Amino acid sequence: MPVKLAVAVRTDLDMGRGKIAAQVAHAAVAATLAGLGTADFAAWLREGQPKVVLRVRTAGELDDLVRAQAGGLPVEVISDAGRTQVTPGTLTCCALGPAESQRIDAVTAGLALL
Amino acid sequence: MPVKLAVAVRTDLDMGRGKIAAQVAHAAVAATLAGLGTADFAAWLREGQPKVVLRVRTAGELDDLVRAQAGGLPVEVISDAGRTQVTPGTLTCCALGPAESQRIDAVTAGLALL
Repeated sequence: MPVKLAVAVRTDLDMGRGKIAAQVAHAAVAATLAGLGTADFAAWLREGQPKVVLRVRTAGELDDLVRAQAGGLPVEVISDAGRTQVTPGTLTCCALGPAESQRIDAVTAGLALL
Repeated sequence: MPVKLAVAVRTDLDMGRGKIAAQVAHAAVAATLAGLGTADFAAWLREGQPKVVLRVRTAGELDDLVRAQAGGLPVEVISDAGRTQVTPGTLTCCALGPAESQRIDAVTAGLALL
């Protein structure tokens, strides 16, 4: 079963590309620490850490993804410290997985690549 | 002692912001897996994973950073699988740390933020 990590980033915050990269990295590290020791995480590493970075347009769209946690999908939401570019506590992105690609796709269908 | 993770990204490859974010995330995850169990990594987590994303303009500038490994700084170089945007095996970015900020700065002084 292919596995992947998806990170969805808000595009309504006007973050620069370096800021976006740092937020996505934060989400990927959080997903890694949460996933250590699980079979999905081990499979994901074996497959070369496949990642997809997607866009959401609002905080509401991000919330919709976070609700996938209720269905058992690993979710890590990133809140920015707000030292640059955004207000402290702003939710900037979330990681879904690593998990079976099919389970990720079921939640992210319709979202465009960043 | 403040600690941080720096990721330096090549800007000569014309990668889009989503591609850059995925490469930086890859570097941060590699640095995490390499750092697990070290004092610097534990301090970095405690401090909220401070990260800085920097730019290098050429493969040569990236190589210069990778040489910091010889001085004992943790370095993880990312080679892209090349499924999108770049040729397979292209070195896209590298992570330095997590390590004491002073040690990172000694190597990255002069590099601009991405």
